[in-house]
Amino acid sequence: MNQQLELIGQQAKAAEAFMRSLKTQKKNDVLLFAADGLVKSTRMIIEENQLDVEAGRKKGMHEGLIDRLMLTPERIEAMADGLRSVAALEDPIGEVTGMKQRPNGLLIGQKRVPLGVIGMIYEARPNVTADAFGLCFKTGNVVILKGGSDAVHSNKAIVTCLQMALEHFGIPPFAIQLIEDTSREVTQEFMRMNRYVDVLIPRGGAGLIRTVVNNSTIPVIETGTGNCHIYVDESADFEMAANIIFNAKTQRIGVCNACESLVVHENIIGDFLPYLKFRLDPKNVELRGDDMARQVLPMITPASEEDWGCEYLDYILSVKTVSSLEEAIDHINRYHTGHSDAIITRDYEHAQRFLDEVDAAAVYVNASTRFTDGYEFGFGAEIGISTQKLHARGPMGLQALTSTKYIIYGNGQIRK
Amino acid sequence: MNQQLELIGQQAKAAEAFMRSLKTQKKNDVLLFAADGLVKSTRMIIEENQLDVEAGRKKGMHEGLIDRLMLTPERIEAMADGLRSVAALEDPIGEVTGMKQRPNGLLIGQKRVPLGVIGMIYEARPNVTADAFGLCFKTGNVVILKGGSDAVHSNKAIVTCLQMALEHFGIPPFAIQLIEDTSREVTQEFMRMNRYVDVLIPRGGAGLIRTVVNNSTIPVIETGTGNCHIYVDESADFEMAANIIFNAKTQRIGVCNACESLVVHENIIGDFLPYLKFRLDPKNVELRGDDMARQVLPMITPASEEDWGCEYLDYILSVKTVSSLEEAIDHINRYHTGHSDAIITRDYEHAQRFLDEVDAAAVYVNASTRFTDGYEFGFGAEIGISTQKLHARGPMGLQALTSTKYIIYGNGQIRK
Repeated sequence: MNQQLELIGQQAKAAEAFMRSLKTQKKNDVLLFAADGLVKSTRMIIEENQLDVEAGRKKGMHEGLIDRLMLTPERIEAMADGLRSVAALEDPIGEVTGMKQRPNGLLIGQKRVPLGVIGMIYEARPNVTADAFGLCFKTGNVVILKGGSDAVHSNKAIVTCLQMALEHFGIPPFAIQLIEDTSREVTQEFMRMNRYVDVLIPRGGAGLIRTVVNNSTIPVIETGTGNCHIYVDESADFEMAANIIFNAKTQRIGVCNACESLVVHENIIGDFLPYLKFRLDPKNVELRGDDMARQVLPMITPASEEDWGCEYLDYILSVKTVSSLEEAIDHINRYHTGHSDAIITRDYEHAQRFLDEVDAAAVYVNASTRFTDGYEFGFGAEIGISTQKLHARGPMGLQALTSTKYIIYGNGQIRK
Repeated sequence: MNQQLELIGQQAKAAEAFMRSLKTQKKNDVLLFAADGLVKSTRMIIEENQLDVEAGRKKGMHEGLIDRLMLTPERIEAMADGLRSVAALEDPIGEVTGMKQRPNGLLIGQKRVPLGVIGMIYEARPNVTADAFGLCFKTGNVVILKGGSDAVHSNKAIVTCLQMALEHFGIPPFAIQLIEDTSREVTQEFMRMNRYVDVLIPRGGAGLIRTVVNNSTIPVIETGTGNCHIYVDESADFEMAANIIFNAKTQRIGVCNACESLVVHENIIGDFLPYLKFRLDPKNVELRGDDMARQVLPMITPASEEDWGCEYLDYILSVKTVSSLEEAIDHINRYHTGHSDAIITRDYEHAQRFLDEVDAAAVYVNASTRFTDGYEFGFGAEIGISTQKLHARGPMGLQALTSTKYIIYGNGQIRK
């Protein structure tokens, strides 16, 4: 194995035991101190960030990406506020649940503990560096970061600040480490460091996530892609439906909980689609419809098979016509990514069946899919939105970064 | 992809939606009917099993393995009883927890749902076939089985019986499928069927589990290997310690919760080790000790570095001397497999620190590690013992085979 990686792994493991016994009060003190440290280092961080921004410009990086990469005093203040708000959250570590006495007198319960060492692979957004540290540190985890090569100077500067805060409190600085070599080979090796890393969380676009899922031997928490559907049932209130679709499609287009596909009952499409189009037109949303949708609105683009499975992240919405609730559910379960889907209906039984039968992390009745979010769900923080079924599903707060262990109190019991 | 596998995957997905809406009463009826069906088919199953046994004998299979492979009327009755006892367990599916009203009026809760399609890879124990079906079916999951090539006739016979029970109730028989082609290539492809399979559970020896972990792109629940330690603290009651060690080492040697390594405080090793040896001698347990242990008992084998990390599954026990609780905890965390470890002590603070700092699925004070087991923990069933930290850790009962989804009741909410 790459020597640098091996060393990072060993240092992470060494820090893990220390982290396991950190008390909540100390963790909060560190987070608040680190937040102040980031703000005090604003000038240094921005200087380093400028190196990344200039390099990005030189290689012709898209302005949108440059914007994501660039740090300003306000953005550094926002990172610091992120750490402060994590400090204010309840610490999930240490809670013991389900403690029960067995017939033989053994007392058995489950205690919430850190996962251990968390690997994070992400792209060129330096704010993820501080976010990931805050969430992992609060839950007693060690974190190893592999950020994008385009943000390497920014990430180094931020990690240095955070490590200084750790050292100030006598905590091993290796509780957060950055893999500075962002080459493909090192990343591949990182994804196979099962000896040192307990779980890998990729954060970024669909391509990054697929690469990690296909190459990692470490357990992965898959986050993210969302081909979210809204089904407008025969009994839907048109105004409510149009409001929700307008919100879910246009409030923010580049996010995983935006609506990408509309499914409409054939008995109302003739009336509803023109009504909806009028509502969406100010935002220039392009509709792509099946044959029946195009009979209603001949000017719209025909949808291809590919459209049904597409996460546009753009002002585009596909429109599928169905003749029943069953057909709607089948269509959604076939083409969605299992993120968030909604039904708009006034029919009690349809609402319940949709909730039961649509197989997604979040299923809504009469609300916008945009609510799938750790903050909106009341977790106070979010590490990502899991679209897998193992370990965590849906928005992940602090608890998703924990595990449990059984603790057993005996007085000499042996098994018969 | 292999056409047979592709077909199996498609059939599994088709059955998944059906399984999702199966009611508890019907699932129980099917399990009871299938149990009776197995018993009624005893003759057919044993005839098929004989083909496997004869083939095994012909290729010189070890008698211990032949014994694991062989089915008798009693063993088939035991399989049926297994299905009956799963029928009697509470159904975890459908429970809604944590439902709360958000400030905007959204009502958000988490509903327990099946994982979906579970892949199971195991060796030549045909009883796993019926067990896996029972647990997966009760939790509304579809299961795809890949058993060992040595048991292929037995597995086919059992699966046929189970499918007949499903068909009797109008349930798609593809809710349980067996991959009959047990070649290496097909197994490799199976481990990459992310499109169709939600989770893979390997059951068998360390080699099988490592192969699955290293090759699967599907999320894996790692079960099993156990290098369990018992630490005899300075303040331990010798009689209790010897009883527990005798039980944990000799009650059943081939199991993952058996004790493989002893850690003893240096202040008591001179008195304790001879006392223990006297207790273990009737079972001919071989002790392998470090220098200090060999100063006490010069006749015992010297332990090498390899011994500390070894899961013997035999009448062998390594003995490590330590000068403090800290050293004991460090040694255990370094060499164990994170399965089950115990401290024998009368010291309150040492007990608590051991529970806090040993990083294992189950940590004991003053009890045998042999209790790490779904039945002993009161789950009524066990699909395996997870030694990973993601999703499930420790003995896994029915709940480990489930996921959750957020269900959200709104009345027109949009995100601001």
